Order: sequence, then structure tokens, then C-alpha cells
Amino acid sequence: MDVCAGIDIGGTNTELGLVSADGSVLWLTTFPTRSMAKPEMLLGFCTDALRKIISEKKLVLKGIGIGAPSGNYYTGSIEHAPNMPWPGIIPLADMFRGAMDVPVVLTNDANAAAIGEMFFGAAKGLRDFAVITLGTGLGSGIVTGGEVLYGHDGFAGELGHVIIEHEGRLCGCGRRGCLETYVSATGIVNTAKEWLEFEGEPTTLKTVSQEKIDSIMITDAAKAGDAFAMRLINYTAEKLGLALANLVAITSPSHIFLYGGLANAGDILMNATRSYFEKSLLKNYAGKVKIEFSGLPGNAAVIGAAALAWNEKRAQSSNR
Amino acid sequence: MDVCAGIDIGGTNTELGLVSADGSVLWLTTFPTRSMAKPEMLLGFCTDALRKIISEKKLVLKGIGIGAPSGNYYTGSIEHAPNMPWPGIIPLADMFRGAMDVPVVLTNDANAAAIGEMFFGAAKGLRDFAVITLGTGLGSGIVTGGEVLYGHDGFAGELGHVIIEHEGRLCGCGRRGCLETYVSATGIVNTAKEWLEFEGEPTTLKTVSQEKIDSIMITDAAKAGDAFAMRLINYTAEKLGLALANLVAITSPSHIFLYGGLANAGDILMNATRSYFEKSLLKNYAGKVKIEFSGLPGNAAVIGAAALAWNEKRAQSSNR
Repeated sequence: MDVCAGIDIGGTNTELGLVSADGSVLWLTTFPTRSMAKPEMLLGFCTDALRKIISEKKLVLKGIGIGAPSGNYYTGSIEHAPNMPWPGIIPLADMFRGAMDVPVVLTNDANAAAIGEMFFGAAKGLRDFAVITLGTGLGSGIVTGGEVLYGHDGFAGELGHVIIEHEGRLCGCGRRGCLETYVSATGIVNTAKEWLEFEGEPTTLKTVSQEKIDSIMITDAAKAGDAFAMRLINYTAEKLGLALANLVAITSPSHIFLYGGLANAGDILMNATRSYFEKSLLKNYAGKVKIEFSGLPGNAAVIGAAALAWNEKRAQSSNR
Repeated sequence: MDVCAGIDIGGTNTELGLVSADGSVLWLTTFPTRSMAKPEMLLGFCTDALRKIISEKKLVLKGIGIGAPSGNYYTGSIEHAPNMPWPGIIPLADMFRGAMDVPVVLTNDANAAAIGEMFFGAAKGLRDFAVITLGTGLGSGIVTGGEVLYGHDGFAGELGHVIIEHEGRLCGCGRRGCLETYVSATGIVNTAKEWLEFEGEPTTLKTVSQEKIDSIMITDAAKAGDAFAMRLINYTAEKLGLALANLVAITSPSHIFLYGGLANAGDILMNATRSYFEKSLLKNYAGKVKIEFSGLPGNAAVIGAAALAWNEKRAQSSNR
């Protein structure tokens, strides 16, 4: 059976999996990204694991797709990723190509998610849409006219690094006020910590020490009706809604899909985001743009990364 | 001789001209947009003038290109343009097609400028760039992968309506804090009026009554060394530089071209814009994106609008 490998490198965890042409995940493993002190360690771990499972299951590896923060489609490198353990430029596609001798495609994790959505998810048949990944950071994969928007240098779609606050929170990229410092799993935790310094309101988040608060705790508390946690989500949604309205003024997608850890907040986040979004939209776009959750099943990140490789294979066949 | 007509409808003036296939303007006329109380008046005036000049000069009209604020390429209509005398939806392409029986293309004025720049200006051979028009409002024409970014509904590229200030200045679109309320000919005049209320600093702008101040007066004063006027331009450039850096994070162009009335401020505006732009850029893009003035000669707006029609003709021939 033909398979493509998907590698989704996140700021927190990396997932490695094998995905069939119909989008089924045949095998999957996860490890903390920071457990790989050097990219060579990641390469060795992944290639060993892939060789073993491919031989055991008698599969044929047709390609590898890698989604990574600050991944550059044109160069196949991770370049100066703010939230990653490896500084500088990492030519990861070349490294994997050298080790496995199959086509390797790399782009940022959000572009991979967008291609996954287009191949296997809720964006089938759509030509203008965006996928927003709400994980450790905030990523965006933008599709216009049926093609991923890569820009002149392969780095288009860094919505998380749009500056929304003058002299705002310090970002991993070294600047201040980037959207992802407010709207991401890390961002909402930062908001919680800032507010807990000054707020007298009772909240279940006060029952744990501040270092232990994570975004899951916040979204769980909000779902359980904790008013403080709900305000945190509302504040995050307000900033997200405005940023998405501003994105629409630039690329005018028909759909925006939310994806990743923070999207687990579900309807509380979605309803507030939609409400602020519509309020902030230019009249021309009113009521025309749908915000939805990703239509990909669990392990969506790996499916997206593998879809990269499947997409490249199909593009090659259609060029012949 | 074959010609295309270009009609550039601006918030203040409308230009109508005839442009040859090499981008030469053969004939041109200008009138205040508000002198046409209804779009039917504009249609009648333009078609009468075109018929007369075409017959006199023995030209062959091959098409009409119209650039207009909130112009929708897909529908050929002006839809709810904030700065225009005609409310609602104006099916201007259909109206001109009915009257002149030639192909008619309509898009927003900034997209027209972008196509003009690609055909006849400084963007020849570029695949990823943006043109920013700084007139009564702020428009943007974004080209990605060699194609104008129209979005799902024809309304992509409304950078002037990105909200940059929470509860900021009231915009013609009915919302508050849009970029163009700060960065445009109107925006800089508004800043001047706000500051003059509170500023003790001497400035030549105090020698005229506030209602008479326009952006040309401000840029002329700045060029003559008026410190207050220079601060006005600097403030405008700061907002523009940040907005352009944020645009780069989304579409990653190689070049951004400034065009329109306010661009006449020249180096004072350009140097400050570039400086704030580089300061605000994500590290990945540093030093890679050039900001330049438009490479189109005078009457660039009409050339851009006519280029729309020439572009459409070429696309049709290559499809055959």
C-alpha cells in the first residue's frame, strides 16, 4: 500500500504518522519537540521509526510532508522559527531527502493544515479560504484561487506576527504586540496570569499555582461556567475576531477554519469570535464569510503534513 | 489605431482617457466626480466624449477599463463605496457595455493601478507585489503569483479598511479606526486639524483657516522645512510603515509601490515609511521587501484603468 509520511513539528509536540491516499492515519507517534536537542536527532528518530514501520507493515513510502513553524516551501528550510528549540536556518527537507530518497515537501504548519483541509477536510472544493492554527503560537494558511499563498519568499501567511498592540506583549520573534501573544494557547495563559495579579473575582484558576495554568485548564473552567475563564475566552475572541475581519479586508476568503489546541474551547470561543468578527467587518463582506472549526478528524496536523506530499505527487502527475 | 479607454473614478476627481497598447495616453479629460449627481450622468458624459474623440481621431476602441473604489471585478459593479456620491450597488460595467458594445472590465482603483504597474510601470516581471494608492482614501492592489488577488467575492485588497485603532476616527465606511482615516490625503488633514487644536508650535499651516488645509499644503510646508508639517508626515508614515509590515506578514510581496496624491510628499514620506516599516517587520522578511514610488508616468490612474482592458484582451487571446 502507498503511503506518505506526515511530520507536524509544533512548538510543544511533534507528531509523525503515515497517511494513505484517502486520508486515513495508518500509524502515529508523538514526542516533545524539545526532546530533540538538535535537528539531526529529529531526523534520526523519524527515519529510524519510518524504516521500521514501513518494513513491518510492508508499505511503500511515496513522499514526506513536513509542517513546521517558519517553514519555507521554496527552500525546504525552517528559518528563524521564534518558538522552536533550533535557531537559524535548518534545511530539513534536504536532510530528509538525503536520508530517505523520496520527495520531501516542507512548509509552515498552517499551510500544511490548509492543504490537509482542502484534500481531506471541510475545504474540499473551496478556492479562497484560510486556516488559523491556534496552538503554542498562531499560524495561518491562506488559499487564494485554489493555491496556497506563499508570497515572493515562501513566508506569506504569518498572521500570528501581525502587530496588533503598540508596545504590547513581548513575542518569541523579538518584537512586541504580535497577535499570537494574545491569541494562542500561550496568549490566553498570559492573559490569565496578567489578570490574576489584579482581579479579586473568584475563579477555579486560583486553586492552582500560576505556573501550572494552561489553556486546557482555562477552557475547561469556562465550559464549567467559571465567569473569569469565560471572560478570558471572550477577550481572546475579541482580538481574534478583529484580526480575522482585518484579514478578510486583505484576502477576502469565503471560509475561515479554526484548528489546534485553543479551538477545543468550542462554542464559547466560536460564538464570541463570530460576534466580534461580524461587528468588525467592512459592510461589503457582511454575512458572506463563514468561520467554522476544522473538518479534519483527530491527528489533523499529521494528515495536513502528509497531504502536502500527496498534493505534490498529484501536481507532478498532472504536469506530465 | 487600436485604443482602450481608461476611466479612473476617484473620491474627488474622475479621469477619462484613451491609452494605446504601449501605454501612451492619447487623450485625457478630468472632472470632479461629485459633478455627476447620478451614475447615468457619468455614463452619458463619458460615452459622448469617447464617441466624439474616437470619431475625430479615427481610433478603434477595443475595450473599456474602469477603476473605482469598492469596484467588484466579478460583478462589474461599484458596491457600497464609502467615499462616493452614489450609494448602493452601481452596475457600471453593464451600463457601459450596453452603451458602447465593447468589453468592459471594472475593478477597484488600486487593482487597476496594480495591473497598470505590471503592464506599463515598475512591476514589469514581478509576481508578488502590492500597490498602495494614497488619495482621498487608501486603496491596495495585491498581486500574488502574477495574478491580482480578488478573493472569493472580488473584494480582496481593502487595506484602507483594516482597523488599526480601537474606537479610532470615524471612517466613511461607518466603522471606526480604519487605516485610511489616518493614512490618506484626508487622513493627514484630519491629523493636522486634531493637532492644531492643541499645539502651540508655530507652523505656516496656522496662516490659513482650518477648513482650507489640504494635503498638498501640508506636504509643501514639510518640503519647505515646516517642523509641524514634517511631524504630520512622520506620524502618517509610522502608521503606514506598520500597516505595510503587517501586510507583508500576510501576503509577503517583494515590492510595495506607493501611488497617488499623498505620495507627492516624496522622500520625506518615503524615508520615514521605510524606516518604520523595517522596524516593524518580522525578522524573516528583513531587508527583503522594497518600498518604491509607482513607476507609472503622469496620468497613471487612467493608464492603470486602461491596462485592465488591455489585460483582459490578452488573457482572451491566450485562452484561444
